[in-house]
Amino acid sequence: MGGDFGPRVTVPAAIDALRRHPSLRILLVGRQEQIDPLLSHCTSIELDRLAVVHADSVVAMDEKPALALRRRKDSSMYLALQAVADGRAHACVSAGNTGALMVLGRGILQTLPGIDRPAITSAVPTVNGHCYMLDLGANVDCTASHLLQFAIMGSVMVRAVENIDRPRVGLLNIGAEEIKGNEQVRLASRLLAEQKQLNYVGFVEGDGVFSGRADLVVCDGFVGNIALKSSEGLARLISRKLRRSFGLNLYRRLLALLARPVLQELQAQLDPGRRNGASLLGLQGIVVKSHGGANRSCFGYALDQAVSEAQMNVPERISEQLELDLQSRDGSVKTF
Amino acid sequence: MGGDFGPRVTVPAAIDALRRHPSLRILLVGRQEQIDPLLSHCTSIELDRLAVVHADSVVAMDEKPALALRRRKDSSMYLALQAVADGRAHACVSAGNTGALMVLGRGILQTLPGIDRPAITSAVPTVNGHCYMLDLGANVDCTASHLLQFAIMGSVMVRAVENIDRPRVGLLNIGAEEIKGNEQVRLASRLLAEQKQLNYVGFVEGDGVFSGRADLVVCDGFVGNIALKSSEGLARLISRKLRRSFGLNLYRRLLALLARPVLQELQAQLDPGRRNGASLLGLQGIVVKSHGGANRSCFGYALDQAVSEAQMNVPERISEQLELDLQSRDGSVKTF
Repeated sequence: MGGDFGPRVTVPAAIDALRRHPSLRILLVGRQEQIDPLLSHCTSIELDRLAVVHADSVVAMDEKPALALRRRKDSSMYLALQAVADGRAHACVSAGNTGALMVLGRGILQTLPGIDRPAITSAVPTVNGHCYMLDLGANVDCTASHLLQFAIMGSVMVRAVENIDRPRVGLLNIGAEEIKGNEQVRLASRLLAEQKQLNYVGFVEGDGVFSGRADLVVCDGFVGNIALKSSEGLARLISRKLRRSFGLNLYRRLLALLARPVLQELQAQLDPGRRNGASLLGLQGIVVKSHGGANRSCFGYALDQAVSEAQMNVPERISEQLELDLQSRDGSVKTF
Repeated sequence: MGGDFGPRVTVPAAIDALRRHPSLRILLVGRQEQIDPLLSHCTSIELDRLAVVHADSVVAMDEKPALALRRRKDSSMYLALQAVADGRAHACVSAGNTGALMVLGRGILQTLPGIDRPAITSAVPTVNGHCYMLDLGANVDCTASHLLQFAIMGSVMVRAVENIDRPRVGLLNIGAEEIKGNEQVRLASRLLAEQKQLNYVGFVEGDGVFSGRADLVVCDGFVGNIALKSSEGLARLISRKLRRSFGLNLYRRLLALLARPVLQELQAQLDPGRRNGASLLGLQGIVVKSHGGANRSCFGYALDQAVSEAQMNVPERISEQLELDLQSRDGSVKTF
């Protein structure tokens, strides 16, 4: 029900996903009277793999997360997460209120043993493809052991979803030398280096994120959110200046017409919509957050991300990895 | 002597600056035997406004700052800062080791009363021109009162150099609402709002930096450095992908040739070299750091920045503003 467009986007995207994934089944959780009319074009085979779970209310995009947890037990978000907690669904995908999804996810699904807080990860473009950043805003004050937890969770997820055997894990910092950075980051670097199952490649600077030096870049949620939004901001500025520059006179507008395929190609490569689907890692269940502004095909990427994570059993794998780590530390749970 | 090119760039850039600023005089501090041959094309009028101060050594680009302060009393950087401390120069401009410049600057010039730590500021492009970010990496752990000090110093500098009567000051955060962000940022927001002489416009998100919402964006040096480098990294990625896309076949290479003026125009608008010259604010003297990779014309921008700050007496103005603030707080120096 969430996002800028609600069921108008999410329902058709769900039907598309059924066609892409022959073994997929989907529960559409929301206001039945809004969803039903959108299913009129479905074939009976598709309808067999779809079910509507009616919800009386919707968490508003600007609703306070803590209030939503207490008061919105009849909301589509609550019921969708409840379906995951009950084992009726393998994953929950939402384009709704991020803060509420985080708080409800934590309240309903609980975090994995050994994980203090869930974290948000998403893919960003690099020279040769993309990498993941974690955390992107769920946790604004992180200790070194939180950063270690992020590294372990993220590494398992990237290995599973991207099929990379030993994902390169970097730690976001303001310099490559060991003496650089704040205390948490320097301590986290030592913790990460000690973990043999992590392929830790050291500090990555802000520009290193996009040069493809790592498959996963770990950071505090405050820093990660600002790094991501700053770079998106500059990209938008470039695109705006380019349009202005190409629109200056008739000759240039003609040129822009000729250059359009090149510019569209670039836009497609950098489009955040193509990497839509931020995973909430660290919960006892799979939760994927779509951009609120996602259109039908972009919302599809978020669904695909959830399918991959479910097929790969990401939460279970994270749990196993955490247990191994705890054992290798003589069961010293406290260090987490 | 510093930067990637040393006197080959800095000396010709200094001579250019003498031509731009008729009342400017320059001390060239460095190895006389390297500098003298570069002055052969100077007119006698220019030579009258130039003097060479010989230095026996140079702080290496990778030298540890603390060691440089203790052992490099005969270095060009030390002597140039000493000239400012002695009143023989109004400002020091260097393309050398940033950390060393910071530590030597603080050791030789001292911070202004009421300022705990100097901070680095530089201009970044926005939709309608540029804004300043502060701090960009000198201070990795900032309290709310450090952020307040940055806001006061930066506001005075922007007012003086950019001739903006009441510069809009924003605080970098991960959301626009008051409840967002970490503790330091939320507390700093309250402190900034209390300061009547500041034109505080509230929180600015990462993408808001480039949309021109503020003339000065205040942040922790860790966050500022990563925001700046991330956005530069994505800009480089875009430029690289654009070149690759335009180079794909003969037709596109022809198109690129036609589109070259547009792309060059864009590059010029976004070129960090055109905003070269990061100011170290909070010292009892003017220190401007040039990019190490600056060429002759880019180094000139750093010299111009120093000239503006000297003409406007920036350190003295910051001092006056701080005294006013202290008085308005009943002289409670401790709050800083």
